[in-house]
Amino acid sequence: MKRHPTMRWDSSAATPALYLIDQRILPRIVRDVRCTSAAQTAQAIKRMVVRGAPAIGCAAAFGIALEAARTKGFSDASRRSALTKAFSRLAASRPTAVNLFWALARMQRAVDAQRGHGPQYGTALAGKLARLACAIHAEDIRINRALGQHGATLIANGTRILTHCNAGALATADYGTALGVIRAAKHNIANVWVDETRPFLQGARLTAWELMQDRIPVTLITDNMAAHFMQRGEVDAIVVGTDRVAANGDVANKIGTYGLAVLARAHRIPFYVACPVSTIDAATPNGRAIPIEQRGREEIIGHAGKTWAPRDVRVANPAFDVTPARLVTALITERGVVRGPNAAKIKALLRDAI
Amino acid sequence: MKRHPTMRWDSSAATPALYLIDQRILPRIVRDVRCTSAAQTAQAIKRMVVRGAPAIGCAAAFGIALEAARTKGFSDASRRSALTKAFSRLAASRPTAVNLFWALARMQRAVDAQRGHGPQYGTALAGKLARLACAIHAEDIRINRALGQHGATLIANGTRILTHCNAGALATADYGTALGVIRAAKHNIANVWVDETRPFLQGARLTAWELMQDRIPVTLITDNMAAHFMQRGEVDAIVVGTDRVAANGDVANKIGTYGLAVLARAHRIPFYVACPVSTIDAATPNGRAIPIEQRGREEIIGHAGKTWAPRDVRVANPAFDVTPARLVTALITERGVVRGPNAAKIKALLRDAI
Repeated sequence: MKRHPTMRWDSSAATPALYLIDQRILPRIVRDVRCTSAAQTAQAIKRMVVRGAPAIGCAAAFGIALEAARTKGFSDASRRSALTKAFSRLAASRPTAVNLFWALARMQRAVDAQRGHGPQYGTALAGKLARLACAIHAEDIRINRALGQHGATLIANGTRILTHCNAGALATADYGTALGVIRAAKHNIANVWVDETRPFLQGARLTAWELMQDRIPVTLITDNMAAHFMQRGEVDAIVVGTDRVAANGDVANKIGTYGLAVLARAHRIPFYVACPVSTIDAATPNGRAIPIEQRGREEIIGHAGKTWAPRDVRVANPAFDVTPARLVTALITERGVVRGPNAAKIKALLRDAI
Repeated sequence: MKRHPTMRWDSSAATPALYLIDQRILPRIVRDVRCTSAAQTAQAIKRMVVRGAPAIGCAAAFGIALEAARTKGFSDASRRSALTKAFSRLAASRPTAVNLFWALARMQRAVDAQRGHGPQYGTALAGKLARLACAIHAEDIRINRALGQHGATLIANGTRILTHCNAGALATADYGTALGVIRAAKHNIANVWVDETRPFLQGARLTAWELMQDRIPVTLITDNMAAHFMQRGEVDAIVVGTDRVAANGDVANKIGTYGLAVLARAHRIPFYVACPVSTIDAATPNGRAIPIEQRGREEIIGHAGKTWAPRDVRVANPAFDVTPARLVTALITERGVVRGPNAAKIKALLRDAI
């Protein structure tokens, strides 16, 4: 079965468009949201039409490309102003995933490197930025496949994996990071325990759906059941994605990840983090320095317009948490597996990149 | 504000009735379900109109009283047969909470002790069983208040407590066990972190509502956020209820409790279990011997008729888990606080009862 793409760049018409599968309504309704400007793309990221650190990075790159196309015939001053606004809008869309800033920085360098003026310059810049965004997108898929191959070496026959949130094709350009490991190790996997991942239910809605399409065995549970199945010896490994890894190996990921890491340690279960190198942020020394997004109350008092808690109850809604490096058995990257990650090993890994 | 009662015995009419607040639709709708037979009461327990171990015990006792009233004019044989059926129906309604079996055993002893025959016997038996059920109900409230007083001695000024599920007035005849401790210590409590408690959302729907009525400060979170706030030092103690405590101190309670206990230990946070002595089952040697109810798939793929997961996804839905005694800082009972519970201490506690 051919999966519906997470995002699709359409340059067939006079003005290009970015189609994003609407992840707020999956799996009931499979429908794309069409973006033709950076502002629309930033809204789509903020409202979680598209989510997942690598996918957000790709979408932001396309958002800049859309803006360059939209303004290619503008005066130099207007185009510059629109692009500056586009970069800051996209950068402000969500705070935690570092891929967003990484992709925007790559796009910014391309803008800075392009010299010229007038309409010809506008057309050349738009073409260049579209090609770069497509390259970032294609690169993400290659990276995920390589990461999956490395991760698969950790998965013995008959493994029962637990995963949290969605670090799948839907969270990336395609294939996925944590789910990329699962896809690459498919024939060794006896069961994937999928945490539903309140409040946005990425596990129940996205991961379960994605894996079922690939005919990988799934068992959906609520978040608070994970410990019970660990206690019963029915979880052999945990594999999750990440939104940002600090220079010392601390891992920010979807709220609930830290609890799973503590539980994994208590039950002597390996805890793996699937992590493209672009998700490592050398500029963030440790987890305390990672900004944690606080989201709205509507997500906590119910779901998708249905409310079950008292409407005026006080809530907290941190979207991410931080797992200290000491609880991470290994980072799985496209360059290989980093066991017992720490500052020195991460520095060495990043050096390979240059 | 006077709370709407969890259950109310109405003997004003010719045939008595039991009114149970419908906990499936709280807090949106405050409405009672009326039962006039054991079969209706058993259905109400099974379908979770009423839930919470002590409340289930009280409701089952009233269910027997209803059946005795309904059949008081029957022939001796028909009445006997109806009562036998009533006992087995109620016993089969839910498997984990021991209070159910404890309350039914008390009612059974009352039936066995009553001698006689004919309509006069029927009337006498019905009166006796109604009085006993009312006594069990009143006793539960006294027990909860005593338990709350003992528990309050553990709660220092400014304490931020985390609780799971609903061990409140709604889970008991009134006042509550875990929430009884919170009520008794009200003036020392800076915040109650309320886990929403998927899948049935007892925390979001019942505990938040109950505590807000008493003007106790509440912050509602999803289950997977608890570890994050422990990591940040914002949880000083955990207090939960229980459905059954084994002779060695192992604790069965709502799914998710075990995970919290492991997390509490990892963060050096005291983990207290509010436990009326009637919830201790001397006949169950340890947690492995406690039957764990497996509930239906509808609860996991959505909530209250709204479905968000793929409809055909495989699910698991254990309603309870078992926390080993070694993770329990103390049992809080109506006879006092049992620190570091084990078989010897529980035996001594139960001996006090006789």
